[in-house]
Amino acid sequence: MGIEGYWARRRERLFTAAAGTREAAPGPGAGDPPDLLLVTHAANVFYLTGFRGSAGMLLAGPGEATLIVDSRYVTAARRVLDDASTPDAPVVLAEVDDSYEETLCELLRARGRCRVGVEADHMTLARHAWLDRALAGSGVELCRTSGMVEAGRLVKDAEEVEILREAGARISGVMAEMLSALRPGRRERDVAADVDWAIRRAGFEGPAFETIVASGPNSALPHARPGDRELAGGDLVLLDFGGVHDGYCVDLTRVASLGPPAPRAAAWHDAVRAAHAAAVAAMRPGVRAVEVDGAARTVLTDRGLGEAFGHGTGHGLGIEVHEVPRIGKPRAADGSEETRLAAGMVVTVEPGVYVPGEGGVRLEDDVVVTETGCELLTDVPLDLAVV
Amino acid sequence: MGIEGYWARRRERLFTAAAGTREAAPGPGAGDPPDLLLVTHAANVFYLTGFRGSAGMLLAGPGEATLIVDSRYVTAARRVLDDASTPDAPVVLAEVDDSYEETLCELLRARGRCRVGVEADHMTLARHAWLDRALAGSGVELCRTSGMVEAGRLVKDAEEVEILREAGARISGVMAEMLSALRPGRRERDVAADVDWAIRRAGFEGPAFETIVASGPNSALPHARPGDRELAGGDLVLLDFGGVHDGYCVDLTRVASLGPPAPRAAAWHDAVRAAHAAAVAAMRPGVRAVEVDGAARTVLTDRGLGEAFGHGTGHGLGIEVHEVPRIGKPRAADGSEETRLAAGMVVTVEPGVYVPGEGGVRLEDDVVVTETGCELLTDVPLDLAVV
Repeated sequence: MGIEGYWARRRERLFTAAAGTREAAPGPGAGDPPDLLLVTHAANVFYLTGFRGSAGMLLAGPGEATLIVDSRYVTAARRVLDDASTPDAPVVLAEVDDSYEETLCELLRARGRCRVGVEADHMTLARHAWLDRALAGSGVELCRTSGMVEAGRLVKDAEEVEILREAGARISGVMAEMLSALRPGRRERDVAADVDWAIRRAGFEGPAFETIVASGPNSALPHARPGDRELAGGDLVLLDFGGVHDGYCVDLTRVASLGPPAPRAAAWHDAVRAAHAAAVAAMRPGVRAVEVDGAARTVLTDRGLGEAFGHGTGHGLGIEVHEVPRIGKPRAADGSEETRLAAGMVVTVEPGVYVPGEGGVRLEDDVVVTETGCELLTDVPLDLAVV
Repeated sequence: MGIEGYWARRRERLFTAAAGTREAAPGPGAGDPPDLLLVTHAANVFYLTGFRGSAGMLLAGPGEATLIVDSRYVTAARRVLDDASTPDAPVVLAEVDDSYEETLCELLRARGRCRVGVEADHMTLARHAWLDRALAGSGVELCRTSGMVEAGRLVKDAEEVEILREAGARISGVMAEMLSALRPGRRERDVAADVDWAIRRAGFEGPAFETIVASGPNSALPHARPGDRELAGGDLVLLDFGGVHDGYCVDLTRVASLGPPAPRAAAWHDAVRAAHAAAVAAMRPGVRAVEVDGAARTVLTDRGLGEAFGHGTGHGLGIEVHEVPRIGKPRAADGSEETRLAAGMVVTVEPGVYVPGEGGVRLEDDVVVTETGCELLTDVPLDLAVV
């Protein structure tokens, strides 16, 4: 991302928005924003700096940030930090010597009295207990935060939407090609190998998740793993895959029939297609996420397929393939019933019907919520592909 | 795994070994084993039941276990539970209605007074706080455990070693094929696509991690991402990839030179090869892991390349591609200096040399510690492949 100050603005917004931050759990000083935020979730580190690695921590405060990486990532981190730093908001690099935790504690002890927010949704009990003990008496106080970075990630900016639009177009091309190449006698796992190869050849950094190729009765498993089963005439074949492009994930599902579909299969497909249309039609700023789910669910329930639709209608999409907002049934456990869509949110729409032992259908697209409704980022015909 | 009682024995060992369990943090009743263990780490759930999903929890006690899954996984879970259950140690299935946390709390409240261990190395602060509040007054007490399941996973049994041996042979075949197919003009990302395709075609469920194809100066980045760079004559090209076979990971690295290597590159390769040999020679039951690391490190230091070897010599391998034991430098932060190898441990040996801006070499094999030394699970010539 070559836009001057792009990453710095994200870090700045983090603390201007922090007044609205809810603490994950009550504790001393709960409610006040921390002086510094310790970002340990890799997707959040990437969002704030452009750095991507399997390890790495960011210690960020207003106008300051330190990226902590181990030797494996020092050269890569230097490359991205030129871009992530501005004169007003520099990012400095700290290299791990002994362990991440030790390096972090040295930095914090040198700084002295301050309040450091940890990401309660990501930090483990063991790491927290270790840090808490190591910082005892240093004047550094750990406090719990929830969703500070995620709040920024929830609504995509124009640059992010453009990346996702390009990725959506590319993954749609892969799907069209893969559907037309399905043939009886091919094994699920070999089709999956071809899918992953095509994802890379389309310019993606790799698959966004484990590619699903589910044939015949396996299509009744929403998260099937491709196995040794050979595709056979009369099968439904469900393809669900995604790619990572410039660090952002897209996710797409279609179903083909090998030869003319059985009447039941055609009816499932027809119902899911209608549910998909209902969800897309319901999508606009201000609508509650549970209402979008309800729109799809009602269509399937009216056709006697409500029980066959066990999962939610969709999920947020971005740096992670599953992120907020969730488009699903109301849950007692969280406040998700009140989540409302806003322009710039990017979500999947993926109703499905699964009949154990027989088969299933899911149709999934990626959409961005616009000022007036939504725009589909993926574009593959929604008809049951007969090959 | 079709062996009668295979999974049940793993669950049984969990509690017979629990007397030796250390608590991750002091707390009420610290030191006593819990009545039940709440297993939330997916690799640990798989180890104890054979179930693999992106979600799922196991609540296990002596002679009893409940697998909690959501609707996406119910059919798949039923398939594996037949195998995982025995008359003496049944595994029952609980389907999530509202959320995993709610379903878990209902099960625990119905049971009443008991002590439930949570996996402190994996459970987040937020989930723990939520459960703690939801269970207040129920008589259910949460306590922190560390490494209870990992203690069993540390030493592989004969069935696991056989899976890893087969996987090692297969991944070696893929490496030999991929090295010989390197050509100037090919892009790193296209080579990576071919690698991932070949991994699947070799019968793996998929790559074990993001495949590394690092050419020329990129080979100096230990965790490089394959990009648009075209391989050029005179390049070192580092290939580091792995596969998942029956749920177990292997991991292999070799380096090729496109045309005759520069004298410096040949010297790096020679040094890393000697370090690799020293580590393999040091590997036997009873030796401390830090000594194996020291054996490799000394070779490189003696050649003036100690600073160029920033990471550890190896890591455990199994259901996860990085697991215990760590073969690295002593760390102040943990008790890892005292870790000793034992027969049945499976680890990588992967010394490397990285010179920023120039290039790097890493040679990685997978080994199982035997009664008398170690056995290589991977088998590809260690010469610098000149193609």
